[in-house]
Amino acid sequence: MSHLFLSDAAVGYLPSPVRDVWELSMQPGMISLAGGNPDLRLSDTRWMAEAAARAITDHGDEVLQYGSGTGLSGLREAIVELMAAEAVTAPADSVQVTAGSQMALDLITKLLFTRGDTILAEGPTYVGALGVFGGAGVRVEHVDMDDDGLRPDALRERIDELTRQGRAPRALYTIPNFHNPTGISLAAERRPEIVEICREAGVPIIEDNPYGLLRFEERQVPPLHSFDPELVIYLGSFSKIIAPGLRVGWASAPTWLRRPLQLASEANVICASVLSQDLARTFVTRGGWREGVAGAAAEYALRARALNDTLSPLLPAGAELTRPAGGFFSWVTLPEGWSAVDLLENAVDEHVVFVPGASFYADGTGSRRLRLAYSLEAPLQLEEGARRLGRALERYGSVLAGTRR
Amino acid sequence: MSHLFLSDAAVGYLPSPVRDVWELSMQPGMISLAGGNPDLRLSDTRWMAEAAARAITDHGDEVLQYGSGTGLSGLREAIVELMAAEAVTAPADSVQVTAGSQMALDLITKLLFTRGDTILAEGPTYVGALGVFGGAGVRVEHVDMDDDGLRPDALRERIDELTRQGRAPRALYTIPNFHNPTGISLAAERRPEIVEICREAGVPIIEDNPYGLLRFEERQVPPLHSFDPELVIYLGSFSKIIAPGLRVGWASAPTWLRRPLQLASEANVICASVLSQDLARTFVTRGGWREGVAGAAAEYALRARALNDTLSPLLPAGAELTRPAGGFFSWVTLPEGWSAVDLLENAVDEHVVFVPGASFYADGTGSRRLRLAYSLEAPLQLEEGARRLGRALERYGSVLAGTRR
Repeated sequence: MSHLFLSDAAVGYLPSPVRDVWELSMQPGMISLAGGNPDLRLSDTRWMAEAAARAITDHGDEVLQYGSGTGLSGLREAIVELMAAEAVTAPADSVQVTAGSQMALDLITKLLFTRGDTILAEGPTYVGALGVFGGAGVRVEHVDMDDDGLRPDALRERIDELTRQGRAPRALYTIPNFHNPTGISLAAERRPEIVEICREAGVPIIEDNPYGLLRFEERQVPPLHSFDPELVIYLGSFSKIIAPGLRVGWASAPTWLRRPLQLASEANVICASVLSQDLARTFVTRGGWREGVAGAAAEYALRARALNDTLSPLLPAGAELTRPAGGFFSWVTLPEGWSAVDLLENAVDEHVVFVPGASFYADGTGSRRLRLAYSLEAPLQLEEGARRLGRALERYGSVLAGTRR
Repeated sequence: MSHLFLSDAAVGYLPSPVRDVWELSMQPGMISLAGGNPDLRLSDTRWMAEAAARAITDHGDEVLQYGSGTGLSGLREAIVELMAAEAVTAPADSVQVTAGSQMALDLITKLLFTRGDTILAEGPTYVGALGVFGGAGVRVEHVDMDDDGLRPDALRERIDELTRQGRAPRALYTIPNFHNPTGISLAAERRPEIVEICREAGVPIIEDNPYGLLRFEERQVPPLHSFDPELVIYLGSFSKIIAPGLRVGWASAPTWLRRPLQLASEANVICASVLSQDLARTFVTRGGWREGVAGAAAEYALRARALNDTLSPLLPAGAELTRPAGGFFSWVTLPEGWSAVDLLENAVDEHVVFVPGASFYADGTGSRRLRLAYSLEAPLQLEEGARRLGRALERYGSVLAGTRR
């Protein structure tokens, strides 16, 4: 891939591991637990065709023209309403609208990091974030998680260790709710502690929260943002609650970041699709979005249960499975000595696919882990997928046992 | 703007000079020659409301879901058809669809440059490109233009000079057709020479062509791309021919850039708004786009003539005015000792605004130049705007003469 004309940045980007299994997942009869797409049949989009037509006809001079650099008038206010539903209190002028929250992460990485700098992230973490960091030449150092999410003691230790090495981290990237890829949530009591550790060390936090509204239980956990809005940059998205094809997300930025973020966004794309922004605005302002999102979340909860309840008794001794309380993913840790990539071969024979875990780590670990997405298939399909995975585990387990004998 | 948490990149971005005069241009009774927006009343968008509704209703699973990293199926082929109308011959798999061609420029800058590297560009050049280069820490060196565009002798000299200084340029950024801000086009006979100079020096060319289809005359000039598709990266856009609010543009990339460009684009935004991409595709595949674009170009030609024919006899001795053969802009050079910023004060009193020229240079020159956009006002308004500017020139001229006496 290297070429005389290319800079160092060109070799840092990573191909998507989901695409690696894409062709497999398209084979007839295959059940895919790979992609992290939302199921559009669960989104309330029946209003959208008429709303799009009306926007183009009635105010085409707004939605078809160049838009404001920070975001469409009224959309930023609508986003404040969305954020309030998750106890994020932030003013409209903190909101930078972007072409998906992926873009917000890309801009923030540009604005906080120089090539060679270090960022902290959960191990494992969102593969799309690893792609951004790789392209920016930012070194990712993982912080250990347990069933309650990021471990404060591990975070403190990692910061100290890196600082001693002269590589003090310049930010922490974290997905505290229904984490991708593990489905784990950061425990409420750890949240103020995580923020305090970062504040003391002068480490800003990028809190990525695409799944927060898709919670399976009533219980509301305070966002990291609520403990220090000048330290925490909050990222949100319409992709999982309306439609990713619109490409509308946002950052709610501390005061010191707002102006650079706006200028960097304008230099990047001028503004996000104004027609898309208009539809995102209408989604909120027409009302009823809380009920629509809660309905989708209830269905995702059924799917999580269908997959995990079926799979759990089929796991070999020593394997672990997370039981998420929201979002799209659960995460399997295989017994010592097992390989997710080898399991995938057996799984494909059984007509089920998933994403092997190593892609979610920057440091080459994670070989005995795998991500299961339950977002896109119906419960009966997921149960069948779990049974197929169970058979693949059994077959692979016998082969392993045979090899060792 | 600087802050402990921000990197060097955060201080390099530039605010838009068009926004600086935005509030002025919104004053009642003001005639604006400032913004470079297309006039949507000239775009054929009557089909779009129904097409958007149909796309969402009939294939919402495509246009509302995550899309391909390179671009929507069928859109890349449609772009090949668009490019062919300008004698750009490139295969569909050379096309990377982006959220506006601004994004393509931002990605390419990332992929070709390291902070501190040098790029060549016309002096003056597109202010949005200066914003991208500033953010990336890329040093802009201008190459002189005359009425036939970029001067080959000046280009050769600049490359030699910079190379001797150990700052060999890593690319040339150029807008050969109806250049922003000057309206000048690069003469046909200079084109192969420019490409040859760059090829010899190992300098790839970024050919930005947002206005090419909006030509006032039949005559077709070959693109730089046609002389070396492996050296020239071609940028195109739907913004000026349909609607900028959709945010759909593209790069047609040499083979060595395609894969890095796709990965960088995915890391940046995953994909451009799929609904917008669908509408851009429909614009081409429904047919009749050539006639629609030609009709808009004919109206822009009337506007250019209305502004320039009225203004020309009102200019003071020693002033110059470009007469573009396409696009949105003409460019005035005031006599020695005059200042465009001081003229603007007089112009605002006469209720007409423009963008002073210094913003279009990276090196602080251009103080006696100004950009006039004729894209957004009707011919009668433009004639009135020119008369007002004539009065402002006269007033400012007398003040200057008085000061000197």
